Amino acid sequence: MAKMLHARGLAPTAGAGLIGRRALLAAFGAAASAGGASATTIRQDAPAWLTAPGDPLSAYGGRSPLVKVQRILPPDPTGTGSSRTPLQLLEGTITPSDLHFERHHSGIPEIDPDRHEVVIHGLVRRPLAFSMEALARYPMQTRLRFLECSGNSSVLSRGAAPQVSSGSLNGLLSASEWTGVPLSILLDEAGVDPAARWVIAEGADAGLHSRSVPLSVCLDDAILALYQNGEPLRPAQGYPVRLFLPGLEGNMSVKWLRRLKLTAEPAWSRQETSRYTELLRDGRAQAFSFLMQPKSVILKPSFGLSMAGPGLYEISGLAWAGAGKVAKVEVSADRGASWTEAVLGEPVLSKALARFRLLWRWDGAPAVLMSRATDERGVTQPTHEEWLAPFAPGLGGYHYNAVQALAVDAAGKVSNVHA
Amino acid sequence: MAKMLHARGLAPTAGAGLIGRRALLAAFGAAASAGGASATTIRQDAPAWLTAPGDPLSAYGGRSPLVKVQRILPPDPTGTGSSRTPLQLLEGTITPSDLHFERHHSGIPEIDPDRHEVVIHGLVRRPLAFSMEALARYPMQTRLRFLECSGNSSVLSRGAAPQVSSGSLNGLLSASEWTGVPLSILLDEAGVDPAARWVIAEGADAGLHSRSVPLSVCLDDAILALYQNGEPLRPAQGYPVRLFLPGLEGNMSVKWLRRLKLTAEPAWSRQETSRYTELLRDGRAQAFSFLMQPKSVILKPSFGLSMAGPGLYEISGLAWAGAGKVAKVEVSADRGASWTEAVLGEPVLSKALARFRLLWRWDGAPAVLMSRATDERGVTQPTHEEWLAPFAPGLGGYHYNAVQALAVDAAGKVSNVHA
Repeated sequence: MAKMLHARGLAPTAGAGLIGRRALLAAFGAAASAGGASATTIRQDAPAWLTAPGDPLSAYGGRSPLVKVQRILPPDPTGTGSSRTPLQLLEGTITPSDLHFERHHSGIPEIDPDRHEVVIHGLVRRPLAFSMEALARYPMQTRLRFLECSGNSSVLSRGAAPQVSSGSLNGLLSASEWTGVPLSILLDEAGVDPAARWVIAEGADAGLHSRSVPLSVCLDDAILALYQNGEPLRPAQGYPVRLFLPGLEGNMSVKWLRRLKLTAEPAWSRQETSRYTELLRDGRAQAFSFLMQPKSVILKPSFGLSMAGPGLYEISGLAWAGAGKVAKVEVSADRGASWTEAVLGEPVLSKALARFRLLWRWDGAPAVLMSRATDERGVTQPTHEEWLAPFAPGLGGYHYNAVQALAVDAAGKVSNVHA
Repeated sequence: MAKMLHARGLAPTAGAGLIGRRALLAAFGAAASAGGASATTIRQDAPAWLTAPGDPLSAYGGRSPLVKVQRILPPDPTGTGSSRTPLQLLEGTITPSDLHFERHHSGIPEIDPDRHEVVIHGLVRRPLAFSMEALARYPMQTRLRFLECSGNSSVLSRGAAPQVSSGSLNGLLSASEWTGVPLSILLDEAGVDPAARWVIAEGADAGLHSRSVPLSVCLDDAILALYQNGEPLRPAQGYPVRLFLPGLEGNMSVKWLRRLKLTAEPAWSRQETSRYTELLRDGRAQAFSFLMQPKSVILKPSFGLSMAGPGLYEISGLAWAGAGKVAKVEVSADRGASWTEAVLGEPVLSKALARFRLLWRWDGAPAVLMSRATDERGVTQPTHEEWLAPFAPGLGGYHYNAVQALAVDAAGKVSNVHA
């Protein structure tokens, strides 16, 4: 961040200098502005790019070598594991496909689409197998949706907040425009047996990653995704076809989908027993906790993106809710003592990322920033302590969606804290 | 395209087998389906990707080597020119940033953002210069928007329709999520002189590409774009900053923006006199014809994507309108004798691409497909002859937006025709 801005006519609407939704809308609507910035002299030197014709046309437009934006990798990237989207370096709501987070349970298979098919079998009137060519003929649907790993942010549930970037903490989260065939069409064609209640989805990775999905979800807004952000899926995201279940934990959107078996009972597969369950304080395990609950993170500022002295800043971040639309995002700059509503970028879409923004006149005093999303059901993010309450201490951390806090010190340095 | 689908209970709503908006919605709403497809036996062989762990995590998730999707290049890609988005190979509405069309007038400059600034001067109270660091501090706005070159599809205005892909014809069109600083904020900070009517925008390419923009546009929804599809702009799209003017001809969204000069009169710059004007039949030139009018193209099927025998197909394509939202897209399969309304993908956004879809039961007889978009003002695409009427014959072709036609022969081969 850079030079100070001065706002005219913008009065704080909550403690510690926050300028919230109503004031910001009024200011923009009146064509008022964040004024008084950054006047300098015009440079007289002529850089090289002004004196000679530039680079030619190309098949793919690459990134500037000066832009250092890439996925966040673990120390050992081989085998099973995950890489994360560098959320704090991005803007808007869409994740470029090559920066979408990865979570593989047995590496990325290199599939020849001509040798791949999706089979629907089990409790159906007639089992069907779909070649990729056949699938491409079906009616399609296009939607912007987020995808979040249920293990996202889980380190925050297990002790002190680590001092790492927001992408490192929260970057098992991405959003894309997904296009594919509504699964309901294919199930209808196969003829669902009235006894069927579950659909066992299995991928064509070497580990045959497998999850049990309620039939009702498959008949709702599930798709077999063939395209991401306009182009065919990339291998790390399931090429040539993945199941996509909007709003549910990411690993259920089975990549490299090879079969869907309709059953009366769930499979209790390896990945829904060894993982992706939550151990409760009474010793029982909570299984099939699919829904990603409302959540939000402040990205500007955040760890590694410090404040550059007192002045006016735009706070911005992302909010999302697996159950539908984000209804509102509130922000606090005084550790939750007071809150004001942020502006949500339009359009606010169901089960997609919402970018929230608000102005903050920082006076240079230490502050604690927090954001709190509420979904259209009225469900709000819990506090850290509220979130921890039902679970066995120090274990799990799936579906961590507590309100997160960022401490800003007098020097403008930002650190992750539990509020 | 592949095996035949059979629809149950879907009656045509226009000539030559088109199944339009109302019927399709009813069918989906009732969980009816395109049934009866593609049952084959399940393969018993085990491909290599099922027998060994797959590829590791990586900093960037690349494309499958089996996916051949890239920009369409001219024979000589050096110097000035354009490359096109392969529209017919994409789905949904978003263009991956590395496939966004290019139109450069002096190549792509490789700009160091630390040595670049945007200057606002001329008829303002105080000239301002913004470093890239300073710009990044301002409030931002994120929107999905299309960008179209005013020369897109112009070959169709100059004679017989060539037999090339739809991307080759219409691929000077792309769409992205653009994020940047509303220009109105910066102009307000500079203080607009009441005598100012125009803003001369100049890029930092070696040709100093320059266009005159009405001040009213700059005070409306113009932004200085810093991010495209979530990440910093790519060099071919204006890194580190471009002017973005939603709905107007692409070359006005000046890339590598270096200055904005407020003036009382337009500049009559090289690129708005030697190009980007339309010669009328009476010998006068129509200048400053900025607005991209409503337009649509059918992509599936299209040239190079043939039909595979009689049966049920999804027709899909893109529609857009520079003046706002697309209100409707109608499709004809009988050379315009009858029309039915396609389904528009949700949400339909202002000045963005809309994906339209409808089912077509093709009986195997030769047919001519056409699509016709109407915007929210009620303005509809003209016919080819209507479009040609005001212009000097055989010249220009900027802003060509006539209804396009595709002939399907009895073998299912698709060709471009004038209807």
